[in-house]
Amino acid sequence: MSTEAANDLLLRALLRQPVPRTPVWMMRQAGRYLPEYLEIRGNAGSFMNLCTNPELACEVTLQPLRRFRLDAAILFSDILTVPDAMGLGLHFSAGEGPRFSRPVRTSADVEALPVVDPGEELRYVMDAVSLIRRELDGTVPLIGFSGSPWTVATYMVEGGGSKTHGRIKALAYDQPAVLHALLGKVADVTCAYLNAQVQAGAQALMIFDTWGSVLSPRLYREFSLDYMQRILDRLQRQSDGATVPVVLFTKGAGPRLAQMADTGCDALGVDWTTDMGEARRLTGDRVALQGNLDPSVLLAGPDVIRTEVAAVLESYGDGPGHVFNLGHGITPDVDPDHAAAMIDAVHELSPRYHGDV
Amino acid sequence: MSTEAANDLLLRALLRQPVPRTPVWMMRQAGRYLPEYLEIRGNAGSFMNLCTNPELACEVTLQPLRRFRLDAAILFSDILTVPDAMGLGLHFSAGEGPRFSRPVRTSADVEALPVVDPGEELRYVMDAVSLIRRELDGTVPLIGFSGSPWTVATYMVEGGGSKTHGRIKALAYDQPAVLHALLGKVADVTCAYLNAQVQAGAQALMIFDTWGSVLSPRLYREFSLDYMQRILDRLQRQSDGATVPVVLFTKGAGPRLAQMADTGCDALGVDWTTDMGEARRLTGDRVALQGNLDPSVLLAGPDVIRTEVAAVLESYGDGPGHVFNLGHGITPDVDPDHAAAMIDAVHELSPRYHGDV
Repeated sequence: MSTEAANDLLLRALLRQPVPRTPVWMMRQAGRYLPEYLEIRGNAGSFMNLCTNPELACEVTLQPLRRFRLDAAILFSDILTVPDAMGLGLHFSAGEGPRFSRPVRTSADVEALPVVDPGEELRYVMDAVSLIRRELDGTVPLIGFSGSPWTVATYMVEGGGSKTHGRIKALAYDQPAVLHALLGKVADVTCAYLNAQVQAGAQALMIFDTWGSVLSPRLYREFSLDYMQRILDRLQRQSDGATVPVVLFTKGAGPRLAQMADTGCDALGVDWTTDMGEARRLTGDRVALQGNLDPSVLLAGPDVIRTEVAAVLESYGDGPGHVFNLGHGITPDVDPDHAAAMIDAVHELSPRYHGDV
Repeated sequence: MSTEAANDLLLRALLRQPVPRTPVWMMRQAGRYLPEYLEIRGNAGSFMNLCTNPELACEVTLQPLRRFRLDAAILFSDILTVPDAMGLGLHFSAGEGPRFSRPVRTSADVEALPVVDPGEELRYVMDAVSLIRRELDGTVPLIGFSGSPWTVATYMVEGGGSKTHGRIKALAYDQPAVLHALLGKVADVTCAYLNAQVQAGAQALMIFDTWGSVLSPRLYREFSLDYMQRILDRLQRQSDGATVPVVLFTKGAGPRLAQMADTGCDALGVDWTTDMGEARRLTGDRVALQGNLDPSVLLAGPDVIRTEVAAVLESYGDGPGHVFNLGHGITPDVDPDHAAAMIDAVHELSPRYHGDV
């Protein structure tokens, strides 16, 4: 480990411990808005070549940390590496997003799905995690992640992205047992995947439930939240004597934040459609909250960015338990200097919300 | 007018008056799931040819009423006829959805926009409304509609559909005065458009705010809700001695239903991500509620459909003020017999929620 002072603000904030200022990172902080990313991405040939090559995945993970005063690194990878390892044949077609060659649609498809060992089948991810930890040398914590079983399953059943998620929702209504069998398998592999990331060196975990909010309240509980709960109950949440905080993020969760807080997770991601103050009220300070600047704010000028950062900090208010972030991933059309303006504003404006620590 | 007994269940329910059973209609009930619609659509050459031809618009409006026991007709048209009349050049490219040849992006673009007279520029819509009323002959009420100014403006600024609505949100954050000027113009034309529909014979109105929920709570109030309020304040809400009920629908409104109920509208559309009972609690019986079966339920079998219809009715509970509908438009992949199963279930199961009237 390095002798330089480690920045553990993120881990402390996720555990609702006092910090001198609000830590900040950005969803998709390694991504297409960065010219240095685009250069490596262009040379790699494909997005999956980046994901599966530990040296390249490490390099793009570290790129935003060289530019910005970020308080965390997040593994560069994709939520669909898990179903790819289960044999579905992930590929990315231009302009169409991710596609699977062998979608899962019947009871027989589900039964035929192998429960793989991510430590073996996704060795390249674990190698990337170890390498990133070594390169970070203790400067900031490394976040590992996965998709939620429901969100990953939407792609597995639909065969790619979808506007209405009609196929998987038809399964949910018409053949719930088949969908439960699928989600159970995905949850078990995902749990093993996250545990392997922790063993390889991930210091915090985030579960991305991008599509949970397309479900009715009853179906959300049954098909999305219950499987995140199953993962939480089986995760290795201590490593090398330290707690590994777990963040759940359902985009568009709104009033569902309250029941999400009951899962025993450490923190919730909050998108920009719920005010942080309202999210805090809904969750009663039982969990830390991460968010929630509208990513579109970064399309505006630095003065507006600063004002909007101030509004998010003020909405959360005093005390520990806030990790500043965007409400969803940074978009490719953002000027990196605008991301810097956001991060600088958090550094400058957030100390007043934290007492002497 | 006809001598046969008029079915005014919809109008009474929207005004929270007692009814013997819950009325039912479906968003997009005239649409691609119906083979008879596809036949006319195929012969018409283009979607806009259907909209601009009063006889064809009337015919497709009436098609679902011949198949199903529906309690309302809704004008067949599109929310983008308004900006088309303002000169933006609407066209539909295959697989891409609606596009505008001349999007509105600058202050000069907004200033150059004409405030048109919909009674003239959208005469074809009024002719369709009159014709449909004549053909309906008093059997069921006719609903007119428009998009919300915010939702219509998203297409005007983005130039078509969008995943992130980055251009218009950048305007909202960076040049709010320009966006307010645009929304003001669109609201004024929309209000005149809806009033002209009432004059032509529309008996209820619905304002579709498909994209309001992509905004933060503050921006929703400022850029979406306030302009629906402006329309409501200026609408002609009486016609021929009858009240013309107005329904607001923000998809994904969730907790925003409460402030929507404060606008003085008569009813709110509710999508399937909020339970009807919760929507009723949030709005305190100040307005009627319309919804909210998940459209994907219609992909399941008739038994499941019946069970889910029962759950929606039960969630709303006893008393007046419920109009049964889907939580969003019916999708093209639905078997029309499944729509019939839903409608029949409402007829059969809903009387128990209404006392003797």
